[in-house]
Amino acid sequence: MSGQGLFLSFEGIDGSGKSTQARRLAETLRAKGRDVVLTREPGGSPGAEEIRRLVLEGDKDRWSAETEILLFTAARRDHLERVIAPALARGAVVICDRFADSTRMYQGLGRADLRGIVDQLHTLMIGREPDLTVLIDIDPGVGLGRALSRGGDEARFESFGEGMQARMRTGFLALSQEFPARFTVIDGARDMDAVAEDVARVVQAHLP
Amino acid sequence: MSGQGLFLSFEGIDGSGKSTQARRLAETLRAKGRDVVLTREPGGSPGAEEIRRLVLEGDKDRWSAETEILLFTAARRDHLERVIAPALARGAVVICDRFADSTRMYQGLGRADLRGIVDQLHTLMIGREPDLTVLIDIDPGVGLGRALSRGGDEARFESFGEGMQARMRTGFLALSQEFPARFTVIDGARDMDAVAEDVARVVQAHLP
Repeated sequence: MSGQGLFLSFEGIDGSGKSTQARRLAETLRAKGRDVVLTREPGGSPGAEEIRRLVLEGDKDRWSAETEILLFTAARRDHLERVIAPALARGAVVICDRFADSTRMYQGLGRADLRGIVDQLHTLMIGREPDLTVLIDIDPGVGLGRALSRGGDEARFESFGEGMQARMRTGFLALSQEFPARFTVIDGARDMDAVAEDVARVVQAHLP
Repeated sequence: MSGQGLFLSFEGIDGSGKSTQARRLAETLRAKGRDVVLTREPGGSPGAEEIRRLVLEGDKDRWSAETEILLFTAARRDHLERVIAPALARGAVVICDRFADSTRMYQGLGRADLRGIVDQLHTLMIGREPDLTVLIDIDPGVGLGRALSRGGDEARFESFGEGMQARMRTGFLALSQEFPARFTVIDGARDMDAVAEDVARVVQAHLP
């Protein structure tokens, strides 16, 4: 799984602008002639997208947290094998909208014991972290307003209230302190262009 | 997951008669007034059956072995939580046509290193073995003839030749020696009634 490319992930609460920033970074790097693969989780490969549908469609209590973690890990394994690892091996920049940190944060929110399961499964079956994780940090009130105004089909993940979003923000910030070597926190409450400039500057320093 | 019931699994190569024997045992025990849950893997609960379809449908190389093991473990977790554990908790006899030993055997056939992954995932996410595993042992030539004459939709699992069936038989027998406390090997090459009598006698000795 070790290649010459660069593996970047974007994390952040709903409405933080992380998907927009991931897309803008891809455009910026492509304009400079870089081979860029823009992908996302859950999903990102045909098989992983099918598993994503299995998890996200249907009743909220359709799967236990443990089964859900297994399904997300299966999807991540497929995504890594079929999309991320081959791209890195040919030297591409892989930009992934959410990766394992989202699983760590979401699953750990409700039950602290699940974080251990997520980590053990990750070590056993994934064994790879991004080279750089960009956390777009934003006030939950701002983020929620943006997410609700956008709508979309992410009802399951984005039907949380502001209190939950605040806990998610705290969870992501805690992860940034747990993994300081690969996390960069960027203030997402500013003008989109200003945020994009910060992102591009940080990434530029990591490019091979 | 500890209950007052009895958890039985049936294992064996294709055409060994294990499914028939599992069904006959269920009928025998029900006739004696026992609460019996007859189930099977992969699948066995609505969610697990959906995961089963995801794994068994489509191209043979659709999933890597590692992703397949994760999906089967997710299905088993759902099956255990939704069907097996509740039945055992109320004192039922659970008869499962294939359980984790099938995964151990199949995945270990091609690549010995996968057996370790199967076991680690089992310890982490399942943590339960049957109280008694009945291995219906049969000569591969006899088993293959029976499987082919029956037809059915298990093309993926039953499209192996006699050489592969011989390796599977060896794999199951090795598991019976690895777990002697819970395995019982029964000669499946005889008349179905004689096999059923042997199965009933062994199970009778384990009933609570």
